[in-house]
Amino acid sequence: MQVLHMNKGEGETSYAKNSLIQKKIILNGSSMLESAIVNILWEVKPGSMGVADLGCSSGPNCLTVISKIVHMVQAASDRMGRPMPELRISLNDLPGNDFNYVFQSLPELYKKLKLDCGIKGNCYIWGLPGSFYGRLFPSHSLHFVHSSSSLHWLSQVPSGLEPCAGTHLNKEKVYISKSSSTSVVEAYQQQFHEDFSLFLRSRAKEVVAKGRMVLSFIGRRSPDPRADEACYHWELLARALMSMALDGLVEKESIDSFNTPYYAPSLEEVQYEAEKEGSFVVDCVEAFEIEWDGGETTDLKESRGTRVSKTIRAVVEPMMESHFHLRHETMDELFMRYAKIVDGCLSKTRAIYINLLISFVKKD
Amino acid sequence: MQVLHMNKGEGETSYAKNSLIQKKIILNGSSMLESAIVNILWEVKPGSMGVADLGCSSGPNCLTVISKIVHMVQAASDRMGRPMPELRISLNDLPGNDFNYVFQSLPELYKKLKLDCGIKGNCYIWGLPGSFYGRLFPSHSLHFVHSSSSLHWLSQVPSGLEPCAGTHLNKEKVYISKSSSTSVVEAYQQQFHEDFSLFLRSRAKEVVAKGRMVLSFIGRRSPDPRADEACYHWELLARALMSMALDGLVEKESIDSFNTPYYAPSLEEVQYEAEKEGSFVVDCVEAFEIEWDGGETTDLKESRGTRVSKTIRAVVEPMMESHFHLRHETMDELFMRYAKIVDGCLSKTRAIYINLLISFVKKD
Repeated sequence: MQVLHMNKGEGETSYAKNSLIQKKIILNGSSMLESAIVNILWEVKPGSMGVADLGCSSGPNCLTVISKIVHMVQAASDRMGRPMPELRISLNDLPGNDFNYVFQSLPELYKKLKLDCGIKGNCYIWGLPGSFYGRLFPSHSLHFVHSSSSLHWLSQVPSGLEPCAGTHLNKEKVYISKSSSTSVVEAYQQQFHEDFSLFLRSRAKEVVAKGRMVLSFIGRRSPDPRADEACYHWELLARALMSMALDGLVEKESIDSFNTPYYAPSLEEVQYEAEKEGSFVVDCVEAFEIEWDGGETTDLKESRGTRVSKTIRAVVEPMMESHFHLRHETMDELFMRYAKIVDGCLSKTRAIYINLLISFVKKD
Repeated sequence: MQVLHMNKGEGETSYAKNSLIQKKIILNGSSMLESAIVNILWEVKPGSMGVADLGCSSGPNCLTVISKIVHMVQAASDRMGRPMPELRISLNDLPGNDFNYVFQSLPELYKKLKLDCGIKGNCYIWGLPGSFYGRLFPSHSLHFVHSSSSLHWLSQVPSGLEPCAGTHLNKEKVYISKSSSTSVVEAYQQQFHEDFSLFLRSRAKEVVAKGRMVLSFIGRRSPDPRADEACYHWELLARALMSMALDGLVEKESIDSFNTPYYAPSLEEVQYEAEKEGSFVVDCVEAFEIEWDGGETTDLKESRGTRVSKTIRAVVEPMMESHFHLRHETMDELFMRYAKIVDGCLSKTRAIYINLLISFVKKD
């Protein structure tokens, strides 16, 4: 899974330049974030507060979240007439993440925090590389865990999708689709179950009693994993790939063998795992719609499909690169075709993701 | 000081490929390192042990140190018949350091530690970007601080070297030299005093009572900062630059205005600062010689001067790049001339650095 990281740097196709959707999602989660922080300060009263942002990625969003959290902790402490706790903040992502980009922006953030909040010397920010599907932090060291736009990524392509007697199970598709067999759906569900329960077991050891987690990720409202809201953007990417295969630009066999390590769960699936693991109580949930292009209407220089295509490319290019080994121009062509297909789709219908926002409290 | 970092990546001129000297220095410090660790385990008995490597850089040396420390902690715990403490390890360097390189090697290190020591889940490694001339860590969170080949770098070019009435104080030189005026020497000494006392004050707040620091850096035995052992490699670099200026490849004015943010202190200067600050006691000191090319005689493919030149280039190129704005080929030419000058020097004399190795204990 060394290839699951966003497009690096600050170029045209970088995640840093194409992560407005993820920013919107963060903004949508603000009030739940604030309420979690206020409750921690009120109930746990930490003198030193451990905070983790899991799957922080490398664009400006990463530091937006941290800056928000620091401001919220300070404002809440002020309202309670208490000194602000010392903040120990860990930015986590896989080892392939562009941490250099994040670290080079830190001096600016520290300067800003000092100006805005007069915070000096009581806020410490680390980078912690590693998979959140497993232990990351010392026992009982965290008061608050945040994760946005990350937990829809699985730890691996479902092991149940390995070719059976030389035959690929999920031909011509890259994720669950309308026509997926039950075995494909079950393979994805099983991987989600394994991953999310391991996530909860790991965090259960790391988070203190009454500590909290606010997790935000793409999911679905429908009980059916084949529902459009959960998989239609992948369906269209598969179409773009298949059109490339027709023109001999991509091998069909490599499309048949490609599956994304992704799952958009329903709220019920998440809640079921939480109850089974037993350490966390779901405190508050929200499911909101977000348009594929973020609903931005201001930028008329490029089509909505192009914007959607850029967003998706910034996120999936490294893993597609490593599977398909396409030349840069072929990759450009693929995402141009994808943009056109998306434009066609958006001219007929409103296409949305469902984002789940869930606040958990650690039991005593 | 965004430009004080080693050459990135793994190319021919990278620090990763040209850091054998620094590795030798680490090996020379092993027994003092081990003794400090044994003493911490014996006297402080931490259940969770905070460790920091300050100025970790980005080559293989960075993880060599960490791996050594983990093995030493485990061996010592075993001998004492105690469970190994949880290890919280912070790798620190300036924000411009190539942390991506280090982080991508971490999965391999974790795998190795698990194989060698059966360590699972009780060793956590973070990256912490920031200057060690100032607070980096929460109060009383560290048991052991290590730093190798870093503390001879100052926080900035001495402020006393600013041009006076339009005249540069340290013309045709890049550091203190035999012919330096007293005001140049004093400017360097003053900056060292400010920096090292701030380093000690910061660590004093972060290290627990009876915690320890093992610091290793280039210094000198002579009381005179103008002694060859402290500055001759800079003197020769200045000569190479001046020969470039004669051929119109570098502007003389930009040599006059260039000074390295470096100081090779004597043991007495270090001890004086420690006594004045008052939180740490010097437990043990060592000064050893290290040949400019590390004393390696095996590689006959290139001259000793070339090897020295590569070592120096890996360390100083980013800051020279940012000052002189040389094209890559001009930089190649500069370091080829430097190699020749060093070869000439080494044919007549034995050229050495003096490395100071000092173990400090935090008072109760």
